Amino acid sequence: MQLNRWEEVAQAITTMAVRGAPAIGIAAAWGVVLAAQAGDDLQVAIRVLRDSRPTAVNLGWALNRMQAAVTASSSVDSVMLAMVAAELQNDDCLQTQRLVDYGVSLLEHGCRVLHHCHTGAIATAGVGTALGVIAAAHGRGILRHAWLDETRPRLQGAALSAWELSCLGVPCTVIVDGASGLLMRRGQVDAVMVGCDRVAANGDVANKIGTYNLALVARAHGIPLYVCAPGSSIDLATLDGDAITIEERSEQEITHVHGQSLAAPGAHAWNPAFDITPAHLVTGLVTEFGVLRPPYREALSALPLPNQR
Amino acid sequence: MQLNRWEEVAQAITTMAVRGAPAIGIAAAWGVVLAAQAGDDLQVAIRVLRDSRPTAVNLGWALNRMQAAVTASSSVDSVMLAMVAAELQNDDCLQTQRLVDYGVSLLEHGCRVLHHCHTGAIATAGVGTALGVIAAAHGRGILRHAWLDETRPRLQGAALSAWELSCLGVPCTVIVDGASGLLMRRGQVDAVMVGCDRVAANGDVANKIGTYNLALVARAHGIPLYVCAPGSSIDLATLDGDAITIEERSEQEITHVHGQSLAAPGAHAWNPAFDITPAHLVTGLVTEFGVLRPPYREALSALPLPNQR
Repeated sequence: MQLNRWEEVAQAITTMAVRGAPAIGIAAAWGVVLAAQAGDDLQVAIRVLRDSRPTAVNLGWALNRMQAAVTASSSVDSVMLAMVAAELQNDDCLQTQRLVDYGVSLLEHGCRVLHHCHTGAIATAGVGTALGVIAAAHGRGILRHAWLDETRPRLQGAALSAWELSCLGVPCTVIVDGASGLLMRRGQVDAVMVGCDRVAANGDVANKIGTYNLALVARAHGIPLYVCAPGSSIDLATLDGDAITIEERSEQEITHVHGQSLAAPGAHAWNPAFDITPAHLVTGLVTEFGVLRPPYREALSALPLPNQR
Repeated sequence: MQLNRWEEVAQAITTMAVRGAPAIGIAAAWGVVLAAQAGDDLQVAIRVLRDSRPTAVNLGWALNRMQAAVTASSSVDSVMLAMVAAELQNDDCLQTQRLVDYGVSLLEHGCRVLHHCHTGAIATAGVGTALGVIAAAHGRGILRHAWLDETRPRLQGAALSAWELSCLGVPCTVIVDGASGLLMRRGQVDAVMVGCDRVAANGDVANKIGTYNLALVARAHGIPLYVCAPGSSIDLATLDGDAITIEERSEQEITHVHGQSLAAPGAHAWNPAFDITPAHLVTGLVTEFGVLRPPYREALSALPLPNQR
């Protein structure tokens, strides 16, 4: 898919044609470049792109970098903006590789890792976050098996994560989101590894709906939950999880799949795209700076993050 | 759908055209009647019907009653067997009504109740179990809202429970199974009410996959979990949940819906139909004899149950 106008980029983010917190930040940065090339009002473009999805902080992070570049220049210079966007993309690529290296260091030989949603290469500019860790663990010969939550309603686990891991030859099995407890009760899971859309200053994590349930189930079994959070997903300006806006999407994402109705005629559904996992359920936050451990407020505030919103 | 041969009944139970632990027991009983009418070997019919699904104990309970009637009679008497099956059906109808009355007594005015899978009228001969409680609470004006886990993979909540409650005018909303934690965190759930396929002697419960996760999430929020268990689902011959055989069904139930693929090509899935919720997570067992409280081993062994397998 090639997008030629910034409005198409905003639309692709809203409809989730581009998905994954790091990827949508980078896509939005390139949207600003397209707006500059077209001679459109950059402030309008930045505002619309910023509003294209509410929960991931990466959008704001990338657009702040673009805004700063726009402000610093006396005239609109689309080549200069393209260089800033390319730098963001390159940074993401390097950062996710560092993050993945730290993540793999947490896993033991023969580990079986459970993953939620999709956090692979196509969700970032680089090798992915949590799924990148799983793929790297396989590459180093220490992964025994990957379990993939299918991740209702959009089924990113069954569709995207299973596809990406199978391309890499990683042994993996899809489960329904409700089956993780039975799997853990049977001793089949050694660690849970997920991504995130935003980390608040206290370590609370916004991630794909179902993450909080999974975190509670893992804790009940004494299984560690690692959250992969590149610096671009860390938002020190948000005090805690309750301050994070949770996007609510169309009920049709639940009641229909590929245009076919799954539910009773006229049935209504509530479709929050994310939930909040409180910091106390997070065993470690995996960043490109290293693995953070509780208490997270101190650990997060000590990170060398670029200017926050 | 009309079934004319016992083999069709067994097939309907296996394929889940007939579903719900009480309903499949009664259907199997009528299967024996059909076998007698056709002059088929009743021992073969009873054995095949008994094996048509492994987890619900009701099948064995109903077929034991039919076997006893067959054994007690010197010749095959299909009218007598029909009377036994009708009695089983009538008993189920009366028992579920009593169970529902006890269940409603647990709910407070203005309650919001979360339900998993489907346990309504079409899963029993009567008014249903957990969904019957919810419908009755609405009828008595004390229910504020019903939340329905869609219940992957077969989506009984979105399809059957939502249909049944909407027929009765009960206000209800479907959620994905992974959203219950966020809902509880927001204070939107007062009680969880589910059915079961088998209760072991120690109070461990086998029920639809996802129940155990839901039970852990409810416990983390201090929300009571009530399990509706007619006597026909109680199996004192099974010591605990680990001794219950959990049916594993085709992976296509996860990777496909209505013949359409939801997953990456070639993706594999693990599809256990049930999970085990340990007794310590069950706030109360709702039976036709009353509401049982822990310790369940003593409470269950004191019940006036008919002969167990």
